[in-house]
Amino acid sequence: MATVNRQITLASRPVGFPKVSDFHLVYTPVPSPAAGEVLVRSIYLSLDPYMRGRMSDAESYARPLAIGEVMTGGAVARVVESMDPEFLPGDTVEGILGWQEYAVVPGRTLRKVDPDLAPVSTALGVLGMPGLTAYFGLLDICAPRRGETVVVSGAAGAVGMLVGQIAKIKGCRVVGMAGSDTKITWLLDELGFDAAFNYRTAADSHAKLRELCPAGIDVYFDNVGGVVTDSVIRLINAKARISVCGQISQYNLEKPERGPRWLGQLVVKQAKVQGFLVSAYAGRFPEALEHLARWLTQGKLKYREDIAQGLEAAPQAFIGMLQGANHGKQLVRLAEY
Amino acid sequence: MATVNRQITLASRPVGFPKVSDFHLVYTPVPSPAAGEVLVRSIYLSLDPYMRGRMSDAESYARPLAIGEVMTGGAVARVVESMDPEFLPGDTVEGILGWQEYAVVPGRTLRKVDPDLAPVSTALGVLGMPGLTAYFGLLDICAPRRGETVVVSGAAGAVGMLVGQIAKIKGCRVVGMAGSDTKITWLLDELGFDAAFNYRTAADSHAKLRELCPAGIDVYFDNVGGVVTDSVIRLINAKARISVCGQISQYNLEKPERGPRWLGQLVVKQAKVQGFLVSAYAGRFPEALEHLARWLTQGKLKYREDIAQGLEAAPQAFIGMLQGANHGKQLVRLAEY
Repeated sequence: MATVNRQITLASRPVGFPKVSDFHLVYTPVPSPAAGEVLVRSIYLSLDPYMRGRMSDAESYARPLAIGEVMTGGAVARVVESMDPEFLPGDTVEGILGWQEYAVVPGRTLRKVDPDLAPVSTALGVLGMPGLTAYFGLLDICAPRRGETVVVSGAAGAVGMLVGQIAKIKGCRVVGMAGSDTKITWLLDELGFDAAFNYRTAADSHAKLRELCPAGIDVYFDNVGGVVTDSVIRLINAKARISVCGQISQYNLEKPERGPRWLGQLVVKQAKVQGFLVSAYAGRFPEALEHLARWLTQGKLKYREDIAQGLEAAPQAFIGMLQGANHGKQLVRLAEY
Repeated sequence: MATVNRQITLASRPVGFPKVSDFHLVYTPVPSPAAGEVLVRSIYLSLDPYMRGRMSDAESYARPLAIGEVMTGGAVARVVESMDPEFLPGDTVEGILGWQEYAVVPGRTLRKVDPDLAPVSTALGVLGMPGLTAYFGLLDICAPRRGETVVVSGAAGAVGMLVGQIAKIKGCRVVGMAGSDTKITWLLDELGFDAAFNYRTAADSHAKLRELCPAGIDVYFDNVGGVVTDSVIRLINAKARISVCGQISQYNLEKPERGPRWLGQLVVKQAKVQGFLVSAYAGRFPEALEHLARWLTQGKLKYREDIAQGLEAAPQAFIGMLQGANHGKQLVRLAEY
């Protein structure tokens, strides 16, 4: 067994978009588990937009990372050594393991992954946090009804691609916004979106959206914010529901952006806007995972992964994801399964 | 009986704040009721911020008034002549009667007012649209719990003063924002608000609000919008609920205002913002009126009226209300009861 662990730590707080130099690759000894703990070796590391927030010291729902601390992140791993009777060496697990090759964590923080159900990487995607986020953010907050028009921003991202497909399962008309023509083609040809367009190249996003949503917009699932969201708000129908999952357009601004005020539009349309964190639904994760796994095995939920190779590739892959360079769920492969 | 009706019509669409010249006083014959209709003489006319929206031709939830059309508005009236068996001459009623001394309307659009329950003007205030708006906007959308901090903007207005008192009835800590020191004194000394401040003269509204809400803000009832609301959003607690009733700071802008984007704050705080129109709750009006009448007769709901005299005073009173010059529910007395 290896005795050296490689980790990526936060070297400096980014100003604007993170740079590779904001991260350090460090070598430390592989730790040993104490009673109740488990030593794991990570297979896939998940890269997610929320990590950008942890790199800042602004107040948020989670404490900021300290300079020199290992970057936080979910991962799928194999158990190497277990001091928790619930786990055996060789078990596949998922947990918050950080940007590192080996981790020691309390067994109670790990979730077992069934490798026979689906590829184990799905525990970080459709059968993990992104799937749960799509499920509750769409179904619980927006309760979309058959025939309604659902718009998704960041539609080709880890969460957005699932939101659109779940809305299709519920009988909605689904319109996606994404940032490249390749993504648009994929949404239309592979995922069955009813319409989609590239908001980076559209001459007038609002006009395009109006053309693609002739009956207005009943539900909006927002991953992006900024001008993309402004263009949606103007087209919402009475009693529209808006679920705010992320605001990736705003995370790397050096100066906060200002925008049109639209609370008056919420009054006129009797509309709801709700932000959420998937952690609030922890008690209902089993119910959601059951649905997601059924839809996945029935072929109703497709997904795509963008996999970087090796821990040292993580910083650049993370920066690329914040710029929309990834297509599908961004992962880093740390070891062969 | 008089044969001449006086009406106030929309003379021109205002740019920015309405001017008196945007209204016309016209003389027309008193109309006669057809089958099912009722001729009424108005006693009190209600002036409300929503009327500003009807004067514009921007798309909204209700069609814009046409140039030359009688200004819309609720009023309390006495029945003069009835062709509807449900109503007798002398009955006191409330309905959408417009800015005029006499009106003919279908009997089914009228609500009978019990003059023994409370002064009849309350049918336009605590026992009318403002009371219902406060009731549903606070209780249904925000579900305030005992001990929570509730902030109200426009706290001395027709709706705001009731929101604060209902929140007190529910055991909340209530903080009001209003635009004059006289209003603040009244909120604190007469209505029992826990704290209140004048946002027009505060050096730093956000700092003041933070001082007055040491445990953060759980519920916000917004009548004002703009920078007032910006200062609240930064202080909301996890799972905060925001009810958007009006945006009076925005109604008379010649150029739409821009402001900070704060959807990211909604995510971090898992907060909800919901716009509403009281009309959506029509099926539950009886339930609400029963509660409001009980609280009123128990002395738990106090109110204040600002009464202009005579139809010709309505335009200036309306303009004053949009500028916050009124203290309490703005009415116009058109006749003695």
